Amino acid sequence: MKLVDYTLSGFTDLLASDAPAPGGGSAAALEGAIGIALTKMVGSLTVGKAKYEEHQAFVVQLIEEAEKIKNDFIDVIDRDTEAFNGVSAVFSMPKETDADKAKRKEAMQTALKACTKTPYEMMCFAQAAIELTAKAVDKTNTNAASDLGVAALSLKAAVQGAWLNILINISGIQDQAFVEEYRKNGEAILAKALPMADQIYETVLKSL
Amino acid sequence: MKLVDYTLSGFTDLLASDAPAPGGGSAAALEGAIGIALTKMVGSLTVGKAKYEEHQAFVVQLIEEAEKIKNDFIDVIDRDTEAFNGVSAVFSMPKETDADKAKRKEAMQTALKACTKTPYEMMCFAQAAIELTAKAVDKTNTNAASDLGVAALSLKAAVQGAWLNILINISGIQDQAFVEEYRKNGEAILAKALPMADQIYETVLKSL
Repeated sequence: MKLVDYTLSGFTDLLASDAPAPGGGSAAALEGAIGIALTKMVGSLTVGKAKYEEHQAFVVQLIEEAEKIKNDFIDVIDRDTEAFNGVSAVFSMPKETDADKAKRKEAMQTALKACTKTPYEMMCFAQAAIELTAKAVDKTNTNAASDLGVAALSLKAAVQGAWLNILINISGIQDQAFVEEYRKNGEAILAKALPMADQIYETVLKSL
Repeated sequence: MKLVDYTLSGFTDLLASDAPAPGGGSAAALEGAIGIALTKMVGSLTVGKAKYEEHQAFVVQLIEEAEKIKNDFIDVIDRDTEAFNGVSAVFSMPKETDADKAKRKEAMQTALKACTKTPYEMMCFAQAAIELTAKAVDKTNTNAASDLGVAALSLKAAVQGAWLNILINISGIQDQAFVEEYRKNGEAILAKALPMADQIYETVLKSL
């Protein structure tokens, strides 16, 4: 059964269990989906409103782009847990002979790289989502201002949560070029996305 | 159908729609549930492990308390949207006579107060959850350190998201004693909970 087909109460129960997956990675992806869904909702509550007539073209595009990013986040919820299951599978590989051990070690490196790629995808989705949400401030229905603020908070949690998942996985990776690439790219996204998310929250906070 | 019985993909689709509820309030509650579920998971991955033997009594209690707070958050997901639906219902009340208008105004004040109480409950749950998660740092399975970090990030988003929902609702409330009470209590929670959540994230970040 796919994680995205669990109910909210069923998913949080599964998350809370002693099963190591789903964990923080899939949780971060879900928070990204929640965040950009709220941005889309604010767009949907703005479209067709006379008061925001000058922003209609923007809002229509906002809704389209937000829907796409929401689907990206939903898709990566399961893929992140599948990547983690790849690590778990390595633990059940034989480790009797030197050949076993070498094969196991290689499989672990491959699995850890897969577990780094999925949260990195989340960081990219979150950056796009935060940029889109930032553009929506001042162009969307002010009755839903708090929802846009919650969107920014959720997307910030998603991007930082994904970053923690990258860090814990690259700590076991021996390919230093790979490690440096993901560290550098992840830090670049944080440097851009976090102040932008904070700015949205502050702007909303002042408007209320 | 209850919101907590929606699937993850179904809930995010509903959230993204032009239905004004569920919105940021129920989203913040869900993020609280995700956060404390992760704290419980980290406890569950620690219990019975020889390496953390000295913390077993704490961890057993952690799991119990986290389960309780998770259920509190799950419960308030639907109650927050029901409170919001109370506001929507006022808009369909008659407004022909002066008596109609007076009745409508009074109903709106009652509905806005209900919409302030549910996010305030979330703030209280989030504060308890953040305090519990802070205690878990250094006493739980370090293999799940990133999950504890994501827990703190989710709970921070929940407490700040709930606060935005309080602010947007009290802006329409005329009972100044009520407004001041919720503002003061909310600010006190933020002052305590936010630095604590940030501290957990920073500690986890440094450990990875």
